[in-house]
Amino acid sequence: MRVAERRRLVAVARGAAPANLYLRGGTLLNVYTGELYAANVAVYGERIAYVGSRTDMVDASTTVLDVAGRVLVPGYVDPHVHPAHVITPSALARHVLALGTTTLFADTLQFWELGGVRAFTAVADALARSPVKFYWMIRPHAQSRTADEWRRFPLRDLTRALAHPSAVAVGEVTRWPDVHAGEPHLLRRLDLARVRGQRVEGHTAGASAERLAAIAAGGLSSDHEPITAREVLDRARQGIAVMLRESSLRPDLSGLLNALKDAPGLAARAMLTADGSMPAFVQDHGFVDHLIRTAMQRGVPPLDAYRMATLNPATYFGKDTDLGGIAPGRYADICVLRDLGEPRPETVIARGRVAAREGRTLVAVPEPPWRRVFATPAARLTVRWRARPDDFRLPGRPTLPVLRLVSTVITKIEQRAPQRGDLHAALIDRGGRWVAPALVAGFAERVDGLATTISTDFNILALGRRPPSIARAVNRLLDLRGGVVLVEGDAVEWELALPLGGIMTRAELPEAAARERELAQRLGERGYTFHDPFFTMFFLSADFLPAARLTPRGVWDVKAGRILLPSRQRA
Amino acid sequence: MRVAERRRLVAVARGAAPANLYLRGGTLLNVYTGELYAANVAVYGERIAYVGSRTDMVDASTTVLDVAGRVLVPGYVDPHVHPAHVITPSALARHVLALGTTTLFADTLQFWELGGVRAFTAVADALARSPVKFYWMIRPHAQSRTADEWRRFPLRDLTRALAHPSAVAVGEVTRWPDVHAGEPHLLRRLDLARVRGQRVEGHTAGASAERLAAIAAGGLSSDHEPITAREVLDRARQGIAVMLRESSLRPDLSGLLNALKDAPGLAARAMLTADGSMPAFVQDHGFVDHLIRTAMQRGVPPLDAYRMATLNPATYFGKDTDLGGIAPGRYADICVLRDLGEPRPETVIARGRVAAREGRTLVAVPEPPWRRVFATPAARLTVRWRARPDDFRLPGRPTLPVLRLVSTVITKIEQRAPQRGDLHAALIDRGGRWVAPALVAGFAERVDGLATTISTDFNILALGRRPPSIARAVNRLLDLRGGVVLVEGDAVEWELALPLGGIMTRAELPEAAARERELAQRLGERGYTFHDPFFTMFFLSADFLPAARLTPRGVWDVKAGRILLPSRQRA
Repeated sequence: MRVAERRRLVAVARGAAPANLYLRGGTLLNVYTGELYAANVAVYGERIAYVGSRTDMVDASTTVLDVAGRVLVPGYVDPHVHPAHVITPSALARHVLALGTTTLFADTLQFWELGGVRAFTAVADALARSPVKFYWMIRPHAQSRTADEWRRFPLRDLTRALAHPSAVAVGEVTRWPDVHAGEPHLLRRLDLARVRGQRVEGHTAGASAERLAAIAAGGLSSDHEPITAREVLDRARQGIAVMLRESSLRPDLSGLLNALKDAPGLAARAMLTADGSMPAFVQDHGFVDHLIRTAMQRGVPPLDAYRMATLNPATYFGKDTDLGGIAPGRYADICVLRDLGEPRPETVIARGRVAAREGRTLVAVPEPPWRRVFATPAARLTVRWRARPDDFRLPGRPTLPVLRLVSTVITKIEQRAPQRGDLHAALIDRGGRWVAPALVAGFAERVDGLATTISTDFNILALGRRPPSIARAVNRLLDLRGGVVLVEGDAVEWELALPLGGIMTRAELPEAAARERELAQRLGERGYTFHDPFFTMFFLSADFLPAARLTPRGVWDVKAGRILLPSRQRA
Repeated sequence: MRVAERRRLVAVARGAAPANLYLRGGTLLNVYTGELYAANVAVYGERIAYVGSRTDMVDASTTVLDVAGRVLVPGYVDPHVHPAHVITPSALARHVLALGTTTLFADTLQFWELGGVRAFTAVADALARSPVKFYWMIRPHAQSRTADEWRRFPLRDLTRALAHPSAVAVGEVTRWPDVHAGEPHLLRRLDLARVRGQRVEGHTAGASAERLAAIAAGGLSSDHEPITAREVLDRARQGIAVMLRESSLRPDLSGLLNALKDAPGLAARAMLTADGSMPAFVQDHGFVDHLIRTAMQRGVPPLDAYRMATLNPATYFGKDTDLGGIAPGRYADICVLRDLGEPRPETVIARGRVAAREGRTLVAVPEPPWRRVFATPAARLTVRWRARPDDFRLPGRPTLPVLRLVSTVITKIEQRAPQRGDLHAALIDRGGRWVAPALVAGFAERVDGLATTISTDFNILALGRRPPSIARAVNRLLDLRGGVVLVEGDAVEWELALPLGGIMTRAELPEAAARERELAQRLGERGYTFHDPFFTMFFLSADFLPAARLTPRGVWDVKAGRILLPSRQRA
């Protein structure tokens, strides 16, 4: 906000200048005091100028919105969002805005990994004026270990990215064992945020209570990974700010909320997050509105439920003078509700404009300049190599390490001879230089060939029972410049092009959700039994999840920290 | 904290390196969760490394403190302290440390006004390693309007000061009417903090509820001036963070706490402050410990009472990963209590060391290099001019504006002929270039002559019924290089030298408290009927308090914003 805008805001509050927008006759949920009372709200530009009973800032130029009988609550804030899952951050924003979410604290993984600090800056700059506010956490490390990792995440670039006006944190730091071990390259990167007064977004999935002290001492300031109320408490006790999650992958919120009963001080700081929910889940359930509703249905007092999704995250990120409450100086982000008990809004005000009504978004959300964001051949998949069935050949050993899926994303290792139902699998370099072959069990044993660029390290994941079908899927994927391709025999059975970096479609959320359901159905028909196939593919290369992963160096034993089956150069 | 220190902290938490200090067997008040439970605390260097039941970081080099039967609470934090009232910030720290206060968010007025950004930096640097942590708010304007004010508070210097690692806010902004009016020089200065994510510390004494929206829109992020529960609520509702005050000047806390009953959401954010309490009050009542005790005596649940004095202010200033709770990574600032109901600690740990026991401070607090801080002749009062009785001559008019004290610091204006009991008064430039004469009633009508350098604009305040006695007091004051001098006839009756900038003694708090009581007694004998003579003198020049003030330009009508009786050049 420039000083001239601030002066005008003050003038409107005094009644010396007209408001642009005036909400008349509503009942306000004051998240600062916990009170509900009648109040009008005057808006100038993007911000709230006045909250009270006076009307002297209303003139003929003011748009007056009659909200009699309605409840006004602050626009919802999600403190931990992965905004590039299948759809663009802008498409996500367009959808969730109508559901009342007006601020996203968002991950940069995809932009950062595929385009570095220039790509991040291009995205952040483009979204700086979005009606849904975007703030960013900057990744300090990759999702799969590589020898050149610290060169790929240089201190200089991280420092530059953290200096961006919309950067608020380093994160998500998925590699908590390295924090626990005091790995100096990583700690040095976390320290860059600390000296700026920024946050360090953690991820401590599976860390036992006794390890949390060292992780907290290492500087992680939040965690969104607890999957039980006990884990919530364990983390909160160590001073780690907890984000209670309900996502398509981990719809755990109902259970997590039990922690609030055991710990009377927790609700003052806890937050709610939808994390990396996939399109179909968001379409079916909602976004932050769904989290608030779930909390109230589980008996959380409305003040606490709304605060955990508004003021608490705003305060945690040091943005509480801009966000999180309906008060002068804040962005005019307001949900107009029919009833405090139903968080899905009738009308949404964002940045001072009527941004959505009855579930329909009425304002434009800018799209980042994707051609500039994804500028390299690898990012754009404009490559000349093509896959061959021989790429999926396995070494002739009596036993091999098999990655058996035991849930949507968790694997266990079976060291044994290949058997019926095992799929050939491989992670392949986007540039075609190497391939990491493997065997996978428990995925979908009747898939002939599947290839996708949806993976945490952005290489190509390929799977199937027939190497020629897998090669066909990979080659069609390269033609599409990324996406998901399912091949039956030699024919492409189903495909989804994700031409933006190989990770995103230009489609809106409802269309992406429809395609997601198609894929789930086709994989289900072929034996997939879990609940989120995008995440199964995405995380097969994430070397921080138990027990084994497919990485550029080969099949990786996460706990032992060693390669079980190495990758090889492609000819 | 450097990365090497962080690595060591993590190693101690893992049990891979020995702790320096280990508190064994205590009961922890966890301010994050609101729980009380048994936990040990391991400290390495200045920080907490581990909280839990393990002992594997204890070896022969570890100092083990048996705290069985004791309660551990975080070191106390005051979010709004004036640290140069009669004693030095270091002397204040030495005293309050033994009372459990381990962090002060402190004012810079005196250093800033008398020595600019260099003086501030010298003080802040010297105290950067103090066991009591000092963080600073930087003043954006003077306490009395002068024509050259914005040149005296240049944007460049403010920007430099705000960039100091221990700066956290602009403030205290006493001139709320200018914020309300949208005064651009002031708003521009407040914006310097906003763009850095820092706070704007407000002061809205006397602002009506209807004016608060414009003040909040102007960017004030906190206020410590409410004197009723109603005023607390009015401010909190506008999103202004409230600091509930109990000071020597305004011991209002008991009443203010009623706001917590009306507003269920308030305790999660409210803070407690001792503001600018003078030495005798601190000696009699305590410091933050007194605030916590008062809150619990008034029925505030212990968790809320302690949080308002620990986690809430740490969070408000964005320092909650360094302060405010007993958790890994935080400064090892811990109060060891005999009982949760009695906040005065048995033992105080600060920056990882046993800093006080049974009310005795055991560690050194550095003193700033005062000769460098106060470097100019005006700051040191090494001046050659001398006062004359004629300086206190008033213009020959039938009526004059008389400043009548109606409370310790509030005046009203009486436009009338001089009468018995009126005192001659004057504000005199430290350099002797001008004098602003006036009449004051209701102060202490039997004072012959009184002079002091205790004033909000750091000029010399002189008062008395006998101009020769006043001149004598001023001249003795100049000999002392500042302080307070009381003259009876021609004899110095009582004096207190404040050779550090004319504002501080080198004495410790108890001695200063004794001298304060002597002055109060002597002034009481001469007719002073209020409760805080230091503050009466201090604020007579503060042009933001009702109704008239003595300023460099003359007698100032605060509400009308005009001079009632001009100052004049001295020959």
